[in-house]
Amino acid sequence: MIPPRLIFRKGALKILDQRLLPDRVKFISVKDAAATAKATKDMALRGAPLIGCAAAFGFALEIRRLRPSTSAGLRSLARRTASLLKAARPTAVALFYAADRMLNMALGFAAKNPGRFTAAARKELLDLIDREARLVTSEDAAACLAMGKLGADLLPKNCVVMTHCNAGALATMGIGTAVGVITAAHKLGKVKRAYACETRPYLQGARLTIWELMREGVPSELITDNMAAHIIKTCGVNAIVVGADRIAANGDTANKIGTYGLAVIARHHRIPFYVAAPAPTIDLLAYDGGAIVIEERSSEEVTFVKGLRIAPRGVKVRHPAFDVTPASLITALITEKGVISPVTRENIKKNLAK
Amino acid sequence: MIPPRLIFRKGALKILDQRLLPDRVKFISVKDAAATAKATKDMALRGAPLIGCAAAFGFALEIRRLRPSTSAGLRSLARRTASLLKAARPTAVALFYAADRMLNMALGFAAKNPGRFTAAARKELLDLIDREARLVTSEDAAACLAMGKLGADLLPKNCVVMTHCNAGALATMGIGTAVGVITAAHKLGKVKRAYACETRPYLQGARLTIWELMREGVPSELITDNMAAHIIKTCGVNAIVVGADRIAANGDTANKIGTYGLAVIARHHRIPFYVAAPAPTIDLLAYDGGAIVIEERSSEEVTFVKGLRIAPRGVKVRHPAFDVTPASLITALITEKGVISPVTRENIKKNLAK
Repeated sequence: MIPPRLIFRKGALKILDQRLLPDRVKFISVKDAAATAKATKDMALRGAPLIGCAAAFGFALEIRRLRPSTSAGLRSLARRTASLLKAARPTAVALFYAADRMLNMALGFAAKNPGRFTAAARKELLDLIDREARLVTSEDAAACLAMGKLGADLLPKNCVVMTHCNAGALATMGIGTAVGVITAAHKLGKVKRAYACETRPYLQGARLTIWELMREGVPSELITDNMAAHIIKTCGVNAIVVGADRIAANGDTANKIGTYGLAVIARHHRIPFYVAAPAPTIDLLAYDGGAIVIEERSSEEVTFVKGLRIAPRGVKVRHPAFDVTPASLITALITEKGVISPVTRENIKKNLAK
Repeated sequence: MIPPRLIFRKGALKILDQRLLPDRVKFISVKDAAATAKATKDMALRGAPLIGCAAAFGFALEIRRLRPSTSAGLRSLARRTASLLKAARPTAVALFYAADRMLNMALGFAAKNPGRFTAAARKELLDLIDREARLVTSEDAAACLAMGKLGADLLPKNCVVMTHCNAGALATMGIGTAVGVITAAHKLGKVKRAYACETRPYLQGARLTIWELMREGVPSELITDNMAAHIIKTCGVNAIVVGADRIAANGDTANKIGTYGLAVIARHHRIPFYVAAPAPTIDLLAYDGGAIVIEERSSEEVTFVKGLRIAPRGVKVRHPAFDVTPASLITALITEKGVISPVTRENIKKNLAK
């Protein structure tokens, strides 16, 4: 089984340090929003849905820590905390969704309880905030289960499936998005083999996805990212499933760097390319992929592997952490609310209205 | 400047150990064909043309070491040595070309000098074999220069070009094939920027190509293999140039794993995809790509980077070292004899007849 990713107990959040996986299972304990944001930025935790859940808990920690005693104090703290959390990473919209949801809950409470809080109101606030954070998390877990079922139905029998990065249990509080689809299909006896792309530079595929697949007993093989086209051509791959960090209103999808290339290769081989992501991943404020900010991370994450230099000193390096796959290359979006295909602005709207 | 890759002095071949680059410039000294084959197999030297040159020198070392005294002895030794060298790696045809060329030279000498050799004949044999090995090498260097000129002419002004693996000076005894095209274009002031894909698992791009480009003063950036599609889409890449390990009679091209995916991505973006390789890379005995043996190397080369494990114990891994790009995805083949475009069986025949 996969270790818990986040453990929220009053006053502290334990975060599974995914940078150490699969070598070591170790937790970091954080007690405020700043430490939660730092763990997110430093990639101790990663995966769009999980980043959102951590932000919800980080928000709850901060309210609990500073226990605002007036509605004005709560409003100010809530706004500051949401901003702090949202600054941790720029691409995953689940982070903004969760932080804004917690913020709105706090602002709503402040509106209903103007002025100085009574002792009962202060207790109610903490309970409310905690409950909302846990709700973000339980909704994520439920969404994973729903996507797993919907996605598994899309895959053919004896499926040979490929995935990129880690959109697994480790990226969520449930069974995962793309990997959840694969493990759900495996439980139905439908998966002949799963290929995990190692996902340079951070190796989420080699460290996390293949580890999850092995633990779940899925027949699986690890490949380097550049083997994908050859494996698709020669090994009968008949579906690719990936997760998403942000989906624009028209279906253009930002996901881990390498996703776009895989989608191009899938189209060339005429195999379906599925994106599985919970509904909060869809950002209706982003008209299309052009509106999505792509995080550029440090060059050291490319030039060093486990602390060892693999490229010459002084080398210039690019490190876009994500890329955008146009909706036209995506066979279907799988959300917990249903399968969106063809991927159009209208079909996305209909899905979200469900 | 790039260090010499092979230094052949009577009785020994010094081989630049490319596994240590760019950290250290160190040479291995080999004195016979078996040690040459082992260095090739272990990837102390790599790059299809260079593997061929090393085989020619390895052959010469062996004849010099055992100094056969009869035509029968020479024939037997020559056949054994050629087989030994050819077994080192299965994909690069330059290796077979060079070993067979040395073998034919030896068999021709044996035919002209039947029975026991005179002292003068034995000296003549050694001179002849040495000269032939040096000729293989000098022809390779000349072919690189010719390809560099032809390829540079194909590139537009202010070109943004991408390459994969290392088809540079380090892969040849000259300025390189694909990288030679880029450095030749740079000398004409035509290169705005060159992107080197790092080329997992062996990182020839990160360790060798970017190092060569930096040493030659080419404005260049290193990317992970899975960034290629995103960079092509967003950074104005207008040509891809790669080398080749073997080209079938119809133009299907075996090259470092990842080449095929790049070609698919280039086609999707409607940018030219060039293969630069000396004429001996074309294997007329291979009807098409299906006839090319793809070497499967050890999984440890994927799961370990610089001796450090990057994937779980017990993981299943694929490691095809090459893939095949169909001729239909190749805009032009560049050999020292000219530019072949469109890439067809007939045009390849015409080029080789020049």
